[in-house]
Amino acid sequence: MTQKATNITWHQGLVTAEDRTRLNGHSGAVLWFTGLSSSGKSTLACAVERCLCQRGCHTYILDGDNIRYGLNKNLGFSPEDRKENIRRIGEVARLFADAGLIIMTAFISPYADDRQAARNLLPPGEFVEIFCKCPLEVCEVRDPKGLYKKARAGQLKDFTGIDAPYEAPLNPEIVLETGSEQLEQSADRIIGYLERQGLIPAQ
Amino acid sequence: MTQKATNITWHQGLVTAEDRTRLNGHSGAVLWFTGLSSSGKSTLACAVERCLCQRGCHTYILDGDNIRYGLNKNLGFSPEDRKENIRRIGEVARLFADAGLIIMTAFISPYADDRQAARNLLPPGEFVEIFCKCPLEVCEVRDPKGLYKKARAGQLKDFTGIDAPYEAPLNPEIVLETGSEQLEQSADRIIGYLERQGLIPAQ
Repeated sequence: MTQKATNITWHQGLVTAEDRTRLNGHSGAVLWFTGLSSSGKSTLACAVERCLCQRGCHTYILDGDNIRYGLNKNLGFSPEDRKENIRRIGEVARLFADAGLIIMTAFISPYADDRQAARNLLPPGEFVEIFCKCPLEVCEVRDPKGLYKKARAGQLKDFTGIDAPYEAPLNPEIVLETGSEQLEQSADRIIGYLERQGLIPAQ
Repeated sequence: MTQKATNITWHQGLVTAEDRTRLNGHSGAVLWFTGLSSSGKSTLACAVERCLCQRGCHTYILDGDNIRYGLNKNLGFSPEDRKENIRRIGEVARLFADAGLIIMTAFISPYADDRQAARNLLPPGEFVEIFCKCPLEVCEVRDPKGLYKKARAGQLKDFTGIDAPYEAPLNPEIVLETGSEQLEQSADRIIGYLERQGLIPAQ
């Protein structure tokens, strides 16, 4: 390998959380979206990410597409596997927040204990639980992948809201009526919350 | 929740890789450090991260400290668990690179197949295998945690280099003689490589 002179000045010490905050213009945080299938979690996370990106914030979304076919492809839908699925997502979210990003997770995450465990990995204030509160009837009408239909027909077992429980958050940081309010309005509420909490700079 | 007017203009569409590159000033990449225990992987990754941070690049390091006690705390050191350990690290590295970061992994990762699997998750050119080529004798003298001593005494089983194999990379992007060359020199070589490959802007 040919060595090119780079005239680098080498500095001691680790890159700190403060260094990352200075570089990014904001600190790391986890926005944990929870709600029934088709309640609008991913759509909302995408809208929020688009907005944050426009403002120069550093973000990423963990969702079924990049997790279930990658990191968690060796997990199924048994109770233990569901628990491990959310555990790993929580751990990865923690890494991203530690790296200084605003990381969004868009999973049903139906069990309160599992969400609490994910919350416990983060410093206070850096975990924002966002409840996408959409009536089951509305989710069933949306049903873009026909999952509720299959679940009602008995072709899908242990489907959240049909034959598996959804434990609604008792004290989430944000509740959004995603069955009735407009996407823009919901996303606006999240951005407003992040500003008020000082998680992103106000504009 | 009180709604504060934020006058947000909502934009359509996903945040793309191009958006992230524009925001960060560089694209995502994986710097995969491999080598024996005490060969200098973590020290070198820290030095490189320090330098990249000074240059405004967005980075993170996955190492034993943040992985073995978090995401992979349910894995031991059996052959299957070692394989799964590296598989998960590869998947998480892919997510970070997809998020636009220069992500460094500092694990022995002794098996060529496992490293190849991690490489296969990335687009060509975005996976940089860095072989920390340090003679076993030097690693054994360093031995800051006394692991080699324990392995020699039979108190640690399946220790890489002692009673478990290390498969040296055949075609790594970068080979560093970390037993003899200075840390600054090794780090300099990596920065030079990243510049020449266009993975970071030249200075």
